[in-house]
Amino acid sequence: MTSPLFTVRPIGTLHTPWRNIADCPRNGRQPDPAPLCTAHVLTEFVGGLRSLDSFSHLLLIYWMDQVTVPELTFIPPFDGQTRGVFSARNPRRPNPIGLSVVAFEGFAAPDCLNVRFLDCVDGTPLLDIKPYLTTTDCEPAASMGWLEPHATRNRNTSRS
Amino acid sequence: MTSPLFTVRPIGTLHTPWRNIADCPRNGRQPDPAPLCTAHVLTEFVGGLRSLDSFSHLLLIYWMDQVTVPELTFIPPFDGQTRGVFSARNPRRPNPIGLSVVAFEGFAAPDCLNVRFLDCVDGTPLLDIKPYLTTTDCEPAASMGWLEPHATRNRNTSRS
Repeated sequence: MTSPLFTVRPIGTLHTPWRNIADCPRNGRQPDPAPLCTAHVLTEFVGGLRSLDSFSHLLLIYWMDQVTVPELTFIPPFDGQTRGVFSARNPRRPNPIGLSVVAFEGFAAPDCLNVRFLDCVDGTPLLDIKPYLTTTDCEPAASMGWLEPHATRNRNTSRS
Repeated sequence: MTSPLFTVRPIGTLHTPWRNIADCPRNGRQPDPAPLCTAHVLTEFVGGLRSLDSFSHLLLIYWMDQVTVPELTFIPPFDGQTRGVFSARNPRRPNPIGLSVVAFEGFAAPDCLNVRFLDCVDGTPLLDIKPYLTTTDCEPAASMGWLEPHATRNRNTSRS
């Protein structure tokens, strides 16, 4: 079976303190304090940011363009067992689409959002911005499978 | 500025009870009971499902291929004011990437996951599966901006 291909076009760029994959934290809530990052939106898409002001958290979807070779399984260094890529947040995915729930701290400029809790490389292409909705996105009782004993329990809320 | 294009390839297909956009619920937690849906994964990607068993919730990322014309702003029928697409979950986005936090109810077959809380059209191409992690994805105190008064507060947990 041949599946169709679809084309994504960046709507902007993410800026973080991390210059390459090796520098990135394990997740965006691990650094303490969590550094300020920015999401720059291309001029032609700025109109879509209307009404974003009073959301406290956003879902940022991005393209992890430094991933060259995907891997269906891998052995996490902190675990030592073979795990499937769809059971992990490893960036080396068939479609290298990244997702972060970020704290939204307002506009630095009409085309630039201040955010915290990103963990991607500086310059990562941004594909979409969605409002985070507690009614559909928040599952506090969720169980984390094989990642449970390895969870970073640091619910970092401090600011740099 | 010309931004690069990236190509996504479906890893599978989502099956839901909804045959077209007009049939879809406002969100996946609105139908009561929430119907059982399935995510079929193409054979070549099944290896990536390893270790998925004991997660209770997943993030499914998909391509809303019935969207033909994106719109940067729109007037929601339940609101009556002009809103930016990035402040809403409207499918008519520059990149029609959909995201749902679903309850994972085990495997119907090695290539088929039983899930609940999808709200997309039957046959929607699946792009990625990620484990839902309470440590990075759960923000119970998040404020929902202009959507706050329109929130569907139904925290549906019933099963059909």
